Amino acid sequence: MSAQESSSIMPESTSPAKVDPTFASALVDHLDTGDLDSALALVAELHPADLARLAHRMPREYVTKLLMALPVETGADVLAAWEEEYSAEILGDVPPEHLAPLLNELESDDAADVLGQMDASVVPHVLPALEDSEAIRNLLEYDAETAGGIMATEYVAVPMHWTVAEATEEVRRNAETVEEIYVIFAVDEAGRLNGFVSLKRLLLSPSSALIEYVMRKDIHFVTPDIDQEEVVRIMERYDLVSLAVVDEAHQLIGRVTIDDAIDVIREEAEEDYQRLSGITGDEEPTDSIVRITRGRLPWLLLGMIGAAIAGSVIGVFEESIRRVSVLASFIPVVMAMAGNAGIQSSAIIVQGLASGDVWSANMLRRLGKEVLVAAVNGIALAVAMALVVVLVFMAGAGIWPDVVLAAPEPVRLAATAGMSLFVVVLLAAAIGVSIPLVLHRAGIDPALATGPFITTSNDIIGLVVFFTLATLLYLPFL
Amino acid sequence: MSAQESSSIMPESTSPAKVDPTFASALVDHLDTGDLDSALALVAELHPADLARLAHRMPREYVTKLLMALPVETGADVLAAWEEEYSAEILGDVPPEHLAPLLNELESDDAADVLGQMDASVVPHVLPALEDSEAIRNLLEYDAETAGGIMATEYVAVPMHWTVAEATEEVRRNAETVEEIYVIFAVDEAGRLNGFVSLKRLLLSPSSALIEYVMRKDIHFVTPDIDQEEVVRIMERYDLVSLAVVDEAHQLIGRVTIDDAIDVIREEAEEDYQRLSGITGDEEPTDSIVRITRGRLPWLLLGMIGAAIAGSVIGVFEESIRRVSVLASFIPVVMAMAGNAGIQSSAIIVQGLASGDVWSANMLRRLGKEVLVAAVNGIALAVAMALVVVLVFMAGAGIWPDVVLAAPEPVRLAATAGMSLFVVVLLAAAIGVSIPLVLHRAGIDPALATGPFITTSNDIIGLVVFFTLATLLYLPFL
Repeated sequence: MSAQESSSIMPESTSPAKVDPTFASALVDHLDTGDLDSALALVAELHPADLARLAHRMPREYVTKLLMALPVETGADVLAAWEEEYSAEILGDVPPEHLAPLLNELESDDAADVLGQMDASVVPHVLPALEDSEAIRNLLEYDAETAGGIMATEYVAVPMHWTVAEATEEVRRNAETVEEIYVIFAVDEAGRLNGFVSLKRLLLSPSSALIEYVMRKDIHFVTPDIDQEEVVRIMERYDLVSLAVVDEAHQLIGRVTIDDAIDVIREEAEEDYQRLSGITGDEEPTDSIVRITRGRLPWLLLGMIGAAIAGSVIGVFEESIRRVSVLASFIPVVMAMAGNAGIQSSAIIVQGLASGDVWSANMLRRLGKEVLVAAVNGIALAVAMALVVVLVFMAGAGIWPDVVLAAPEPVRLAATAGMSLFVVVLLAAAIGVSIPLVLHRAGIDPALATGPFITTSNDIIGLVVFFTLATLLYLPFL
Repeated sequence: MSAQESSSIMPESTSPAKVDPTFASALVDHLDTGDLDSALALVAELHPADLARLAHRMPREYVTKLLMALPVETGADVLAAWEEEYSAEILGDVPPEHLAPLLNELESDDAADVLGQMDASVVPHVLPALEDSEAIRNLLEYDAETAGGIMATEYVAVPMHWTVAEATEEVRRNAETVEEIYVIFAVDEAGRLNGFVSLKRLLLSPSSALIEYVMRKDIHFVTPDIDQEEVVRIMERYDLVSLAVVDEAHQLIGRVTIDDAIDVIREEAEEDYQRLSGITGDEEPTDSIVRITRGRLPWLLLGMIGAAIAGSVIGVFEESIRRVSVLASFIPVVMAMAGNAGIQSSAIIVQGLASGDVWSANMLRRLGKEVLVAAVNGIALAVAMALVVVLVFMAGAGIWPDVVLAAPEPVRLAATAGMSLFVVVLLAAAIGVSIPLVLHRAGIDPALATGPFITTSNDIIGLVVFFTLATLLYLPFL
């Protein structure tokens, strides 16, 4: 979608006009001359999310200045809207006495995420100064990519024997600290999770009713060690805006909210997309050259090693190429088709495995389907290839089709090229399906195997098949 | 993540054990013998979302039988959990008299989505029989990938002059039809959107307070023509679980809920992933061979045309290859590096454009950064390549490094290969950045340009550069 389309009709606060480069430079000017009042007046109407985006257009030192000039609640909202890596970088420049007030305004999960990205030497100094230091210290213990790593400790929970009126009072008491309340959790005397009440249900129930009789018992929950992808899958499957997290004793210890789940979906999708492109390590536009290179160079080097092997395959057939140098012209087609067909098949399998659509039981069926598709595509490509060879011969010779077709050489070359292409596409698809499935069975993330890995191995196999067939079927008859 | 990991601790209703193949075959057996009571008893405890997944393991005719045997509310929940294409296919086998009751239980947006996928000749017969026929007919008019195409007409809206008690009564009246209520909208006498009240706020406000004084005015909204990607971006940016849709007169006409936004995110991510793999048309595992081939073959053919051009580039340098057939061995390395480096750069730019992180203003800066990264990678690869060439010569000649290094031929070949690789990687990155940016400026989806397109054009350019440099720098000195 173009930028023009998206700007057609927008609520005022999301209007791109407000966060354009002129706006950013005016803001920087005010900050530069130390005119904080004018700077704050300029951004007063902006939503914190828009302020957060605006910052990406400003030099870093002014972002820090702006963050410290803002009211602390707004500053915290801006921090929460940034990627945690960027927040941590900006907070690295903020004087220690400003840190605690800002972090105190964040939800526990956001505070833990930012602290987790900050310099390890800073954390022990900042942590004790925080109101929630105990909760945040606990959150920092969890693996960042698990339920524990994305949950917040702000939620509303009430004993089951309370009334609706008492529960409503509890919501009121927590209204400030727990910003998004959609459901409240019901627990027993030991704090064990027993059910939930949606806010709608709470609103519509008589004040004197007991939570026990109002709550729903079919509550979904996870333990903190569950992988974030599984957490998100549960929330998506059952349309949950809030998912309870419990410990081994079934005691409620946190909740994952839908906005964090969406961040996970985005993050995982971007990671998969980058992996398919031969990039690891979740590259961000703000990353340094060194960090970017670290994520890309290994795949390029791996690709080069693979290509060197492919090159040595060609070296083995150097004698054939010396005799018939036209064979070299087929190398790009063989490599392109082996690579593309393999990527198509592997991408579909990796996607199926990630979404849970591909069950272990029907793996053989999937393999069969991919091979069938590859056979259809292979025949189409083989015919097209054979036609191209004949046409090129015709153009080169400047003669009529019947003359070319009567000549054994071009027909045999066309047949050899077509046949090889068919075999190459079929093999490429089979490999594209098999490698992710094998990795999945072995408990390795199949997404690792896509992109450069599949392309490279298929290049090698494709070239072996092509030159072997050419040497056997074409050269002997010249 | 492996299947083993994900099954560790799950709420009962999500336990994979319940939806395994044995379960499905037991269910099919009951349906086969017409023992509907046993079939229903077997699935009675299952969440509709789990039932929906279970169906994917059953032959289609039994899915239809099961759907008709289920209580109509459960059946509708199962329908809503499926992909709309699959729901439409299953409903195609359901007798007409069963259709309307099922569709009536769906939210308007789900009903419209399914009807939009059904046989066009069926719709005019089904539509008049539906309770919401007017609303659904309107929804069907909107482009499926816009706010209008994903919004539902079920929401709660109250006049601003109502009290909190009256608004609560309105929530009660709609509690059945509007399942997920998180906010209610406030409108003026003409039905124009003026604000919103979260359910939390409604719960905590005095019954006699006027909505006008309780509502928040900073409401986000879109018009029905806004692209679904922009809709989702707004909901994500401002952490909304429900987004109002208004017409030109600013009258409220629908709302988009967070679960639909998540579907859009998943759908778009899958589409981008598939495009990068050379697949168009949103392939699903249940698609037919014909449909799958239609999405894949065009890219393979396009790749073949590109590769044929690359082949003819090699053909132009046939004379050089005939003289020094070792040059053919470099073709895979040149193609792999040009392809991989180009894909890496283009993937990052396409992602940045999609997320809005890449602003038109800093495009030149992005290009500079990519070229810098490519230069670093290019130098590393050039050095590695040169070393490989020298080592291969050493291995082939069985001689000492000083002898090889003193010989002009291998050193010159190593230098030529290294230098070409550097230029190829640099050019590939520049092209990988430029093409998506140019397409974006022209209002074309840049994701179309990734994958096979970038790889193919970079293959061609890479080969031209390599053989030109080899012909100029290496061959004349032999």
